[in-house]
Amino acid sequence: MTNPGFKINKLTIIGVGLIGGSFARAVRKAGLVKHITGCGRQKENLEKAVQLDVIDDYSQDIKTAVKDADVIFIATPVGSFKAVLEQIKGAAKDNVIITDGGSTKVSVIRSAESVFGQVPPNFVPGHPIAGTENSGVEASFDTLFNDHRVILTPLAETSKDALNTVTELWQAAGAEVILMEPHHHDMVLAATSHLPHLLAFSLVNTLTTLDEKQEIFDNAAGGFRDFTRIASSDPDMWQDICLANKEALLEHLDHFTQDLAKLRTALEQSDAQTLKALFTRAKQSRDDFTRKN
Amino acid sequence: MTNPGFKINKLTIIGVGLIGGSFARAVRKAGLVKHITGCGRQKENLEKAVQLDVIDDYSQDIKTAVKDADVIFIATPVGSFKAVLEQIKGAAKDNVIITDGGSTKVSVIRSAESVFGQVPPNFVPGHPIAGTENSGVEASFDTLFNDHRVILTPLAETSKDALNTVTELWQAAGAEVILMEPHHHDMVLAATSHLPHLLAFSLVNTLTTLDEKQEIFDNAAGGFRDFTRIASSDPDMWQDICLANKEALLEHLDHFTQDLAKLRTALEQSDAQTLKALFTRAKQSRDDFTRKN
Repeated sequence: MTNPGFKINKLTIIGVGLIGGSFARAVRKAGLVKHITGCGRQKENLEKAVQLDVIDDYSQDIKTAVKDADVIFIATPVGSFKAVLEQIKGAAKDNVIITDGGSTKVSVIRSAESVFGQVPPNFVPGHPIAGTENSGVEASFDTLFNDHRVILTPLAETSKDALNTVTELWQAAGAEVILMEPHHHDMVLAATSHLPHLLAFSLVNTLTTLDEKQEIFDNAAGGFRDFTRIASSDPDMWQDICLANKEALLEHLDHFTQDLAKLRTALEQSDAQTLKALFTRAKQSRDDFTRKN
Repeated sequence: MTNPGFKINKLTIIGVGLIGGSFARAVRKAGLVKHITGCGRQKENLEKAVQLDVIDDYSQDIKTAVKDADVIFIATPVGSFKAVLEQIKGAAKDNVIITDGGSTKVSVIRSAESVFGQVPPNFVPGHPIAGTENSGVEASFDTLFNDHRVILTPLAETSKDALNTVTELWQAAGAEVILMEPHHHDMVLAATSHLPHLLAFSLVNTLTTLDEKQEIFDNAAGGFRDFTRIASSDPDMWQDICLANKEALLEHLDHFTQDLAKLRTALEQSDAQTLKALFTRAKQSRDDFTRKN
């Protein structure tokens, strides 16, 4: 690093939205980074990001944006990773550290393999377990990752120095860093995040097709509001996540559907005992979760 | 009314939990009721309710509790209604107004018919669209119904005076009263409340059966927390609601399952266009709902 006061001389954020913007705000606030360059498709969003002091400058051209970067953080929808990495290749410094905030990890690693031939040692795949249903730089804030987990999924060939630098950045952003095997990450996240999003989108979509649609939404209360909040999430991002984690998501979806069919049978047969046992088991797990979180 | 300062001389609350307790607190605060008697199965909860000044006294015997009551509010799980009404019959004054907070209305009306031969004119079926996932009198609070809807489902034979009194009580509790046909109420609520609860219970239950159970709950974030919050609801109450509103719930569940199967096919075929169209439609509806609520 040329500047002794800063850990990182130049950080480039590709995709300055909720995650990219919040990461920029957090590491800047922590005093770790001298200069932050943004990159993205929407000029208006990038200009807003400069106004909000989230980034110092921007370029819409990836090759220009990553020039001389010490660290590149990719925070675009996972479906765009291959195209992004192809632009980075050859344009960034040889020893640049690349990390990301993608919600799936196997697909991201495959993209890196296909672009670079093998996953570069300085590429550290990551996923912050934090977010809101809002998007864009205006939705970003510097405490988004406070007390949240960030899962890093390094490979055997990943450089320890690169892993340490990325860990340090996330810890400076207030996050707890844990390590996980990439396939395992995708299986766990399919259950806790991807399947719930799919179900929420699907339920709201079903309700919009009913005759009573307007009355349904007019008479919905807090339970419905919370249950369906994630159906307000960004469709592009979620289309990408679902496709990128298709196998794990289908596996959990099928498991869920089979269990739901059993519950349907219990309901149809007015089997109070089975319903109560199932509801009680679910409540116990959910109450445990509340106590720990 | 014998006491000119109060609209109601004696109110009896059967089931002094979240809903019954909050109703008692709200109408007492509004100065509408002189005396509130509680009734319920758990003595400890009733004693707590007296200590908290939610009720003035209690009897665990329904016949004793409803003696001389001007208004009876039934806030027990809907599966108990028939047994409760059988106790009230003959023990309460002839002109007593009976209302309830049950989450289903057709089943409640059927219970009244079966006990009284026909639905008494002074029986006003009702359902406050408010609640939390917590239960018991300690979870109750006097503003629970503030700015929430209460749906009353009077029949053709329902007395206008009884309807007016019940309306006045709910309005004093801060609620907006709307009228609805009972079957229609059950269909709407199956969609906005009963189906989401069933899905949340079912998902959490499925996750508890997975090998990665502990990691799943350890790595869940805000989206999961909100989506599954209602899985912490009272199993007894929800067993009752599901059974009492079985037909409407099965109809919506089947509709949901069919749509989910289509979504599964789109996912399996990596049909990005269908996924995006569905997610976009859901997001638009959910965003509309946010703007209005």
